[in-house]
Amino acid sequence: MQEDILAIQSVRLDDANNALILLDQTLIPNETKYLSLTKQEDIWEAIYELRVRGAPAIGIAAAYGFYLAAKNIAKANPAQTTAQFSTEAQKAKEYLASSRPTAVNLFWALDRMFAVIDSRQTESVEQIVAALKIEAQAIRDEDEQVCRSLGEYGLSLLKPGMGLITHCNAGTLATARLGTATAPMYLGQAKGYGFKVFADETRPLNQGGRLTTFELQAAGIDVTLICDNMASISMKNGWINAALVGCDRVAANGDAANKIGTSGLAILAKHYGIPFYVFAPTSTIDLNCPTGDQIHIELRKPEEVTSKWYAKPMAPAGVKVYNPAFDVTDANLITAIVTENGIAYPPYEKSLPPLVKR
Amino acid sequence: MQEDILAIQSVRLDDANNALILLDQTLIPNETKYLSLTKQEDIWEAIYELRVRGAPAIGIAAAYGFYLAAKNIAKANPAQTTAQFSTEAQKAKEYLASSRPTAVNLFWALDRMFAVIDSRQTESVEQIVAALKIEAQAIRDEDEQVCRSLGEYGLSLLKPGMGLITHCNAGTLATARLGTATAPMYLGQAKGYGFKVFADETRPLNQGGRLTTFELQAAGIDVTLICDNMASISMKNGWINAALVGCDRVAANGDAANKIGTSGLAILAKHYGIPFYVFAPTSTIDLNCPTGDQIHIELRKPEEVTSKWYAKPMAPAGVKVYNPAFDVTDANLITAIVTENGIAYPPYEKSLPPLVKR
Repeated sequence: MQEDILAIQSVRLDDANNALILLDQTLIPNETKYLSLTKQEDIWEAIYELRVRGAPAIGIAAAYGFYLAAKNIAKANPAQTTAQFSTEAQKAKEYLASSRPTAVNLFWALDRMFAVIDSRQTESVEQIVAALKIEAQAIRDEDEQVCRSLGEYGLSLLKPGMGLITHCNAGTLATARLGTATAPMYLGQAKGYGFKVFADETRPLNQGGRLTTFELQAAGIDVTLICDNMASISMKNGWINAALVGCDRVAANGDAANKIGTSGLAILAKHYGIPFYVFAPTSTIDLNCPTGDQIHIELRKPEEVTSKWYAKPMAPAGVKVYNPAFDVTDANLITAIVTENGIAYPPYEKSLPPLVKR
Repeated sequence: MQEDILAIQSVRLDDANNALILLDQTLIPNETKYLSLTKQEDIWEAIYELRVRGAPAIGIAAAYGFYLAAKNIAKANPAQTTAQFSTEAQKAKEYLASSRPTAVNLFWALDRMFAVIDSRQTESVEQIVAALKIEAQAIRDEDEQVCRSLGEYGLSLLKPGMGLITHCNAGTLATARLGTATAPMYLGQAKGYGFKVFADETRPLNQGGRLTTFELQAAGIDVTLICDNMASISMKNGWINAALVGCDRVAANGDAANKIGTSGLAILAKHYGIPFYVFAPTSTIDLNCPTGDQIHIELRKPEEVTSKWYAKPMAPAGVKVYNPAFDVTDANLITAIVTENGIAYPPYEKSLPPLVKR
């Protein structure tokens, strides 16, 4: 598989230099700068300041960061006991966890890393540190494999030359390698499929304009930026054959929460007879959540709409702003939900459970 | 009718001071500054720099500007003949017409003003100047009356307490007084209807965020700014009872061209069962244009999407951008087309012609 098309990598380990290598996403699209972080304070700051973003990428960064912390703790005092090491490692875990208190994947990754220590209390510090490296690498590799499977299942739904539309950034920047909704784009590119991708700007944080265009362009994929309100005319022009989006959470009935604007895109796709595919790692599928009505929608600050990014405020002072971070796309608007274990079609109540291995 | 709710006025004549008074729309929403323009060069610059915008407002500004020019020409040489005056006035007309070569209303207003001179070659310069003032005032007053009629017909479709959504700016800033799609909002506000208005940001030029919120807020109307991609969730929340938009051109079959994103909003409205009303002065209805397919869509520069307004570029250098200024909303998505002569319902081929008096 030719995947050297991927010219960028959001997060990786440079073990020889005791460093976490992060692509600083706050500088994109204007600069491609890799940070080499060795101090825990710098790794904490990078997560806090969103230099790394996207749930999987944050988890991977935290896992590598915790491994590097454990390695430093071990090196600082070669004579320490496993119990002493564990106490210090617990502090390092809590410190990293405080960098972004709302990032579920951060805690998930750190808990999984610390479980390695808990389960190896009879082993030497050196053995535990070696096991931590393996675990961090596994967290990364599993994400890469999930994305690859999403990409292969996704690609089976597409044909060469198709026009695709995506929303927000569910790409390599947010994951270990291929992204979720972008995975079939990259696999297709490697096979010479010649997709033409339309990237929604995705106001108000412009992840589509800043990030998706950046990473697809870096891979040589034919990408066109549009404002969110240009999806309708792009579809009417006959340029779009399929819509591919990521998701934050899928309910048992197939309702899918994703970046604000996804539900509108799905309604347009249905109107124009265009298939709408949601790319959902099974980790995002919550069978205990009956429908989208039970999914809480985060409301964010007015300033993100009125003044963030801008040279001057773009709305009158004090104007009311409704700024939901997500919306829920009704299951009946979703043609298929693509998971790493296969493709679910409606009715999702029946098709999702067999794919969610627990 | 209580219309002192309108605290702002985009264009008016200060005849005593030989001045055109313009609200400088390039400073909105951060500053409310009225320009008092007496020199033709300054009026030209104000139109060129979009300090006045909106087809009717540009026409009114040009009419007043031409009247002031004619007044100055008359004053400069009290002994001149009507023929001499006409020659100078023709130069003034051509000069003003060069300020914005794509603004159809600019030429329409100037042609109408100059026709006054052409038809009065036997009269004195003083008489002609007096007639020009009356004509300019008529151009303004007719627009005010069209907007008022649009508002009254529009208000008949609405009920107190309704949630309304609008796109772009079809408001007082663009017209003599009440705007088109905003006219029922202002008339309703004067009657204590308590509308709750949602204003689409309207990327990439953000007329909704900058202008519509500004003018509705100035009138005390309950207005909430949303990004274009938040219309779907706002409708799903049950907050929207009707969508009201302006238009640039309506075809004989009812297809309506308006600011980019209007067609998507109409598709969402249909999906959620919300009536979608287009406010169309009959001057925008082109019965010689069979369908929307014959309406040319202007493509604009990538920079409007990638860097205009922003502190830093918001997309990678060289990325392809599709930036259409307008889209066409299919007639079958439009619940009714409101004109100053009455409300047209489908089939528009039959309902529009009787309303378009020629």
